[in-house]
Amino acid sequence: MMRVAIVGCGQLARMLALSGIPLGIQFSFLADDEESARNTCIEGLGRVVPLRDNVKLHDVVKGRALFDALGQPEVITAEKEAVPMSALQSLAEHARIAPSLNAISMCQHRYREKSFLDYLNIPTARYFYVQSLQEAERALLIFDQKVVIKSTSQGYDGKQQWRVEKLSELKQIPSAVWQEGAIMEQFVPFDKEVSLIGVRSLDGDIKFYPATENVHQDGILIQSIAPTRALSIQQSRQMEDHLTRIMESLQYVGVMAMECFLYEGKVLVNELAPRVHNSGHWTQEGAAFCQFENHIRAITGMPLGSTELHGVAGMVNLLGAPKPPMQLLTEHSTLHWYGKSVRPGRKLGHVNFVSNSFGVLKQNMDSFQLAVNERQRIGESEHDTTQL
Amino acid sequence: MMRVAIVGCGQLARMLALSGIPLGIQFSFLADDEESARNTCIEGLGRVVPLRDNVKLHDVVKGRALFDALGQPEVITAEKEAVPMSALQSLAEHARIAPSLNAISMCQHRYREKSFLDYLNIPTARYFYVQSLQEAERALLIFDQKVVIKSTSQGYDGKQQWRVEKLSELKQIPSAVWQEGAIMEQFVPFDKEVSLIGVRSLDGDIKFYPATENVHQDGILIQSIAPTRALSIQQSRQMEDHLTRIMESLQYVGVMAMECFLYEGKVLVNELAPRVHNSGHWTQEGAAFCQFENHIRAITGMPLGSTELHGVAGMVNLLGAPKPPMQLLTEHSTLHWYGKSVRPGRKLGHVNFVSNSFGVLKQNMDSFQLAVNERQRIGESEHDTTQL
Repeated sequence: MMRVAIVGCGQLARMLALSGIPLGIQFSFLADDEESARNTCIEGLGRVVPLRDNVKLHDVVKGRALFDALGQPEVITAEKEAVPMSALQSLAEHARIAPSLNAISMCQHRYREKSFLDYLNIPTARYFYVQSLQEAERALLIFDQKVVIKSTSQGYDGKQQWRVEKLSELKQIPSAVWQEGAIMEQFVPFDKEVSLIGVRSLDGDIKFYPATENVHQDGILIQSIAPTRALSIQQSRQMEDHLTRIMESLQYVGVMAMECFLYEGKVLVNELAPRVHNSGHWTQEGAAFCQFENHIRAITGMPLGSTELHGVAGMVNLLGAPKPPMQLLTEHSTLHWYGKSVRPGRKLGHVNFVSNSFGVLKQNMDSFQLAVNERQRIGESEHDTTQL
Repeated sequence: MMRVAIVGCGQLARMLALSGIPLGIQFSFLADDEESARNTCIEGLGRVVPLRDNVKLHDVVKGRALFDALGQPEVITAEKEAVPMSALQSLAEHARIAPSLNAISMCQHRYREKSFLDYLNIPTARYFYVQSLQEAERALLIFDQKVVIKSTSQGYDGKQQWRVEKLSELKQIPSAVWQEGAIMEQFVPFDKEVSLIGVRSLDGDIKFYPATENVHQDGILIQSIAPTRALSIQQSRQMEDHLTRIMESLQYVGVMAMECFLYEGKVLVNELAPRVHNSGHWTQEGAAFCQFENHIRAITGMPLGSTELHGVAGMVNLLGAPKPPMQLLTEHSTLHWYGKSVRPGRKLGHVNFVSNSFGVLKQNMDSFQLAVNERQRIGESEHDTTQL
């Protein structure tokens, strides 16, 4: 049996494992620490190894110990950008890392990512890299419009981002952000946010799912619909061309997601994710083979599966839902519940929808969203009563 | 979280659990004994409880202990007909059993099954129920043609069946078969073997997958293709009507499979299975929602998922294949490997195929079958060399 180790033990790791187990693959998981090893979404899908912070893992001997603890995997992959880089470097002596450490580390750092896109001549929102409040103030004067400040690392789901219009607002940003270096980016009042999920096999074969249209709330994805109707054929081809060049240039292996803004008829690349992506969850029921299976196929050297759609598909994220909404499913929707502990606003699961028509799909998604919100509202007020 | 216990821990239990885990359900498994609890296809998908033979489980107190050991499931289901009936009877005091014990026990016994079909006026191959060699000899004279002798219990994959044409051949059948009571059935040189997978929800909603055409070798299923083109619309409706009446009459909850012979333009029901079925494995990639998910939805009281097809679909069983044939996958096929120990002829996994055309589907299945056979032949000859 082939073994794959996944860095991380959240819902993406869970869905990767659930897709890979039928393919005859065994999994193990690298948790950040003892605490996160105890609170996983993995539930016995494979052994979980906590990474101890006090271990210096660039030490080759200890890398070997970690490799053994993970069950000597042939391949190591990650469900997130924030991987423990030195541990992975030492593991790279023993196992193939896919996608490569270079691709992951580039996506860990917004400025490296932006530079890489500039190097490939792929359009993004205009930006400056600033390293002090003074530089930020001057850059803001150059822009002379609303901007977004993004820390170079550790930003996801809209965290570590600030919208700024006036010089005085810059002072409210923690000084650590400037010290680390930050991206000041033109604020783009985009028409649509679309994403493209691509996958590249070990042999260099590339496939794309049709581009997805995404709706965010407070920086968190709440809905996706695919295929998007917002793109012209030229724009779709352009996005596929961008992601092809990105993956080929990196000799990338696995699934990569590219988030873009559609603004004044232009496609601007916003962000890359070197992994399966929330905006591709609809592929589980909406495509011939889903992003999770194709990532596993790619990194283990199998031929890729077809990315063809079954009609039209959509996804609604379940944020802070107290219970799996089993009774709200219909014959054209299904649930993916992550088994995480409940916290307000936390991604606890998602529901996928399939249909033959956009109208019906959107209607089904909206009435589901309403019913879930209603349930949550009632649940919360019941909770309030209990507290009284 | 809702818990479902499955009687059995083979590949069907595995695929049920892999379909149910995303729905937010936890699983436990009842193994026949300590030995089979150690050799499962479950791999940490839930706790495995061995049933100890020496425990008298119709004892109510011990039924409670078993219920507790299984984690107090809300629902108990089975992956096979050969369930430990007294254990399930005592468990029925604590949890809902779906499908019902009555439906399972009827399918355990060929004569009860045949009688049930007769009672519903559903055509089957003509038969006599015989309880001694003498009765068998006389019945054979009545038939005056080739017959099949089937033991009333414990027959699957063509086991416990004998084709007989002459009186002298009857003597070669173990006398225990007559003592238990056996079915002597007209041998049907059928044109096609087709099966129908239906599912009935707790609310009584019924759905069918399109009928499947099956190819057997030595009594073991080797290939399925769906939808079959061998049936007229009337014949398809007739099969759905039969299975509707069967499920409604039993107040059945869950997936049921009905195997039929197509012979001289008539549909004869051969066998019922009160569970997910090998001839429905193609639904994993070939239908909107697969038989495993729909069984779990049905027994847990969720709305059923759509059974619509994605084009045409097929399945090839991997019998005794030494390794998962990962490299033989294409963009239109995928693997379901069971993680069982390898034995010649054993069902170790299957590969599902999807296509838009029957011609392409059949070609893909046949070339895969050839490649697998070739691999196995080479594997075996290498093995021979090692032994020399």
